[in-house]
Amino acid sequence: MSSEPSGAVYGAGALLSILRDGQARTRAELVQMTGLARSTVSQRLDALMHHRLIMPAGDAIFSGGRPATAFAFNSGARVVLGADLGATHARVAVTDLGTEIIAERTADLPIDRGPEPTLSWLVEAFTELLATHDLTSDQIAGVGVGLPGPVEHSSGRPVNPPIMPGWDGFPVPEWLGSRLGAPVLVDNDVNIMALGEHWAGQPEVDHLIFVKIGTGIGCGIVSERRLHRGAQGAAGDIGHIRVTTADDVVCRCGNIGCLEALASGSALAGQLRAAGLRAEGSRDVIELVRAGNVQAVRLVRQAGREIGDVLASIVNFFNPAVIVVGGDVSEAGEHVLAGVREVIYSRSLPLATHDLSIRSSRLGDRAGVVGAAVMVIEHVLAPHTVDRAIAG
Amino acid sequence: MSSEPSGAVYGAGALLSILRDGQARTRAELVQMTGLARSTVSQRLDALMHHRLIMPAGDAIFSGGRPATAFAFNSGARVVLGADLGATHARVAVTDLGTEIIAERTADLPIDRGPEPTLSWLVEAFTELLATHDLTSDQIAGVGVGLPGPVEHSSGRPVNPPIMPGWDGFPVPEWLGSRLGAPVLVDNDVNIMALGEHWAGQPEVDHLIFVKIGTGIGCGIVSERRLHRGAQGAAGDIGHIRVTTADDVVCRCGNIGCLEALASGSALAGQLRAAGLRAEGSRDVIELVRAGNVQAVRLVRQAGREIGDVLASIVNFFNPAVIVVGGDVSEAGEHVLAGVREVIYSRSLPLATHDLSIRSSRLGDRAGVVGAAVMVIEHVLAPHTVDRAIAG
Repeated sequence: MSSEPSGAVYGAGALLSILRDGQARTRAELVQMTGLARSTVSQRLDALMHHRLIMPAGDAIFSGGRPATAFAFNSGARVVLGADLGATHARVAVTDLGTEIIAERTADLPIDRGPEPTLSWLVEAFTELLATHDLTSDQIAGVGVGLPGPVEHSSGRPVNPPIMPGWDGFPVPEWLGSRLGAPVLVDNDVNIMALGEHWAGQPEVDHLIFVKIGTGIGCGIVSERRLHRGAQGAAGDIGHIRVTTADDVVCRCGNIGCLEALASGSALAGQLRAAGLRAEGSRDVIELVRAGNVQAVRLVRQAGREIGDVLASIVNFFNPAVIVVGGDVSEAGEHVLAGVREVIYSRSLPLATHDLSIRSSRLGDRAGVVGAAVMVIEHVLAPHTVDRAIAG
Repeated sequence: MSSEPSGAVYGAGALLSILRDGQARTRAELVQMTGLARSTVSQRLDALMHHRLIMPAGDAIFSGGRPATAFAFNSGARVVLGADLGATHARVAVTDLGTEIIAERTADLPIDRGPEPTLSWLVEAFTELLATHDLTSDQIAGVGVGLPGPVEHSSGRPVNPPIMPGWDGFPVPEWLGSRLGAPVLVDNDVNIMALGEHWAGQPEVDHLIFVKIGTGIGCGIVSERRLHRGAQGAAGDIGHIRVTTADDVVCRCGNIGCLEALASGSALAGQLRAAGLRAEGSRDVIELVRAGNVQAVRLVRQAGREIGDVLASIVNFFNPAVIVVGGDVSEAGEHVLAGVREVIYSRSLPLATHDLSIRSSRLGDRAGVVGAAVMVIEHVLAPHTVDRAIAG
C-alpha cells in the first residue's frame, strides 16, 4: 500500500482506467493528469507493462525535445469468455478486453436439460473456440454467463428459476471455474443484455432501460451507469405488472392482466393458434409478421401498446434517457416500437419524454454475450482488482 | 474514466469520512485502517483539527504504554441551514454537521407569492434563529432548500413548476447565497424527504422509495444509497401514473385515471365535499379521519389501495428494500398503510415482497429539513470538498 502525501493519488489500476479510453498518453501527460511524481508514474507503468495490460503506442510524440514514448491500453492482453444461455438457445463468444468478438458459436441447447449437460457443452464450446484461435486457457481473464432466470449475484447461483428445472442453487461459478481455470461471474440474461447495450451503444448515458420481449418479458435497468439489481436482485421483473387496459386474462402466476400473459411471444403465439394459425413460439410469430400476415401484425402492434402501457408508468417513475427494445419479438421491428411509442408519448409526462430515445437493440442477438464480457471486464479491470493482481 | 483515487490511499477528507461514524479513534487505529504512514496520519489529523472538523475525544485510550489520544468528528464545527418549502407552509431548521436540530421554526408561507417574498422570509427566519443561538454567519457550512416542484439540480433553479408562479428559472442559489454568504443547494421537496428518511431511518439500506401523499403525490428514489434523479431530474413523478382499477376520472393533466386525481389530499377533499362534508384540503381529510368519520376512513383506505396499485408495479420494476409513506395524508396512519400493503402483497412478486418493509415516515414533518441538511452535509464533507478546502 502506498503512502504518498498528496490527496489525489492514483494506483496502477486507476492509471489503467485512464488509458482504457483507447487514447495513448505519454508519462508527462499522465503526470499532469494525476499529480503523481514522475518516478511513481514510471513505476506503475512498468508494472502494467509487466502484466501486458498496456503497451508502448506505435507513434512516439515529439514536443521540442527528444521523442516521448506514449502508452496505450493493450486490449489483446487477455481474452474473455461470454455465454448467453436462453430457454432453448445458447450463444458463446471469445472477446478481447475491449469487448471485440474474436470467435463465437451458437447452438440449440434447451436449458431444461439441467446444469451439468448444459455447462459441459459450454466448456466444450469454449475449449474448441480457444483452440481454433491458438489461445490457451492461461489467457482467460474471466468468464461471464447470463442465465434465463433469477440469479443471486453475490454467489452466482440461480434462485428458484421457473423455467430451469434442476438449476436451483447450482454452484455455476465453482463448477465452471474449476474446469476453465478462471473467475466466473453469473447474472440474469436481461441484466447482461442491458450492460451490453449500454456499453456498446451509449456508454455516456446515465439511465437506460433494456426491455427483452421474448418467450417472457423482462427488463434490465442502468442507473447512474451501473446495473440496478434491487434489494433481492429481482429488479426489472416487469412481466407480471398489470396492464391498465387489460381484459381479465389469467396469467400463469395466478393474477390477472399481467403484461406477460398479454404481450409475450408465447402469449402472441397462443392468440394466433386460437385464430387457427400455426404458431408454436415467438419465432413463428415473427415469421408470420415478416410474411405480412395481417392478424400477426395487428397482434404485435397491440402487444407494443400493452408494453408501452407498462413502460409509460416506468418512464414517469424512473425518467430514463433511453429505452432499448430487444429480444425475439422485437425483430418485428417498427410494429412493436410504434405501439410502445404511441402509448408512452400519450401517457407519460412531457418533461420525461421530451428527450427520451426509444429504439431497438443495436447489438441484437449479441447483446447478451457482449454484456457478459462487459461484466467480466468491469470486474477484472476495476482499479482495486488490478492493484491486487499487480501486488500479488 | 474515473477521477476517484483508487481507494488505497486516504486524503484528509477520507480520514474524516472514517471518523464521521461518531466513533473516536487513535492515530494507531487510523494507521492500521488506512495503511498510511504514521507521519501522514498525524499531518492530516492536524489539518482536520486546524479546521475544527475533528477534536480530541475526552477519553484517552490506554494499551500498555502511555495513554493515546483519540480523535472524533466534531459535528459542532459548523451549522447547516435547512428549509422545506411546501405549497402553503414552510419549515426551517438550523442543524449541526450530524443533522441534529439546534433550532427550528414553521410558518404559513404560500409559495405562490413568488420567489423574492418567500426567500426574503427565509433569510429573515435563518438570521433570527442564528442570532437567538449566538451563532454567526461565518459558521454556516451551507444552505439546503427543498421546493414543491421540479428543480434542475445542477443549477438549483425551478423548471416550469406548476404551483409556483414566478419561480420558473429563478436563481435561488445565487439569490440566497449572496445574502447568507454560504453555498446553497436546491432540490425537489420529495427528493430531500427521501434523503432525510434514508439517512435518519435506515442508512444501511441500499434501495428505498419515499412516497409523499399530500396535496399531490410524488416519490423520492434512493438507488445504491444515492438519490436517483433521472435523465431530466423528473424521476419519482408518480402522480400521473394510471391506476389499473380506476374509473374514468379526468385529471388536471388531461389524461384519465391518474393516481393524483384519485388518491391525493385534494382529490379526497373533493370527494368528501361531493358527499356534503366540509373539506378544503388534505388537513381537513385527516381531521375527519381522526374524528372517526366513516366516509373519510373508507376513502383514505381506498386511496391507500390506489397508491398500492401503482407501487405494486414499482416494486416489481425496482425491487426496493423499504417503502416509506409520508406527507399530510399519511397521518391517517394505518388506514393508508393497510390499503397500500393490501394491494402490494396481492399484486407484486413474492421474491420482491418477501423482505419488503412498508412503513410510515419516522421523521414526519421534519423529513424535509433533515434531508435538506443531509444534502448539504454530504456535499461539504465529501472527501474531495474537504481536501480542497484544506488545501485552499
